[in-house]
Amino acid sequence: MGLIDQVKFDDKGLVTAIAQDAGTGEVLMVAYMNRGTLAETLETGTMVYFSRSRQKRWMKGETSGHTQAVREAYIDCDGDALLFKIDQTGGACHKGYISCFFRKRDGDEWQTVGARIPD
Amino acid sequence: MGLIDQVKFDDKGLVTAIAQDAGTGEVLMVAYMNRGTLAETLETGTMVYFSRSRQKRWMKGETSGHTQAVREAYIDCDGDALLFKIDQTGGACHKGYISCFFRKRDGDEWQTVGARIPD
Repeated sequence: MGLIDQVKFDDKGLVTAIAQDAGTGEVLMVAYMNRGTLAETLETGTMVYFSRSRQKRWMKGETSGHTQAVREAYIDCDGDALLFKIDQTGGACHKGYISCFFRKRDGDEWQTVGARIPD
Repeated sequence: MGLIDQVKFDDKGLVTAIAQDAGTGEVLMVAYMNRGTLAETLETGTMVYFSRSRQKRWMKGETSGHTQAVREAYIDCDGDALLFKIDQTGGACHKGYISCFFRKRDGDEWQTVGARIPD
């Protein structure tokens, strides 16, 4: 796929992937893809990452059901980061929040401010 | 600063930092900070990164004038990524666009769709 040839994967074969809610604009999470999971994401329209900690393919929502459907994909000027506008089922965070960025700076502390995934 | 002790820097001493326009919600860029430039960012309210290619401190807009004023800062569940909602002067991209993510997927091509920085 010609698209992927323009992506600059790092020395570990990974590219940064940001998932942003296509409707609200909320940044939901940031993770990584390798060539294979990026190709799968572009072909299937469902976000598939590569887990650095587990060193394996990681289809978002495969066990939780909280899948991410791709609406739009963007590449940055350097070609080493991707932005996906997605429709999130449930929430993005495994800790029960809509966004993984659920803690906000308040002075010298990170305060939990994010919305939880509705039951 | 207690805030920074909760950040998980990678094996190169870096943390991923996303800059999002506080007004429009547009994701403008993604780059990296080390402990020193994160501390400087939090203390001064102006985005200061660490350039991986040049291996040095990089205050955004220091030469271009396109500085980024921090409005809010968030940390993700894993502590290895930060999201900053900022006010961008001019534009974020050194290639003349408001956002570094100015190319959008269209089939098997990346098409330039982003808005340029006004003169």
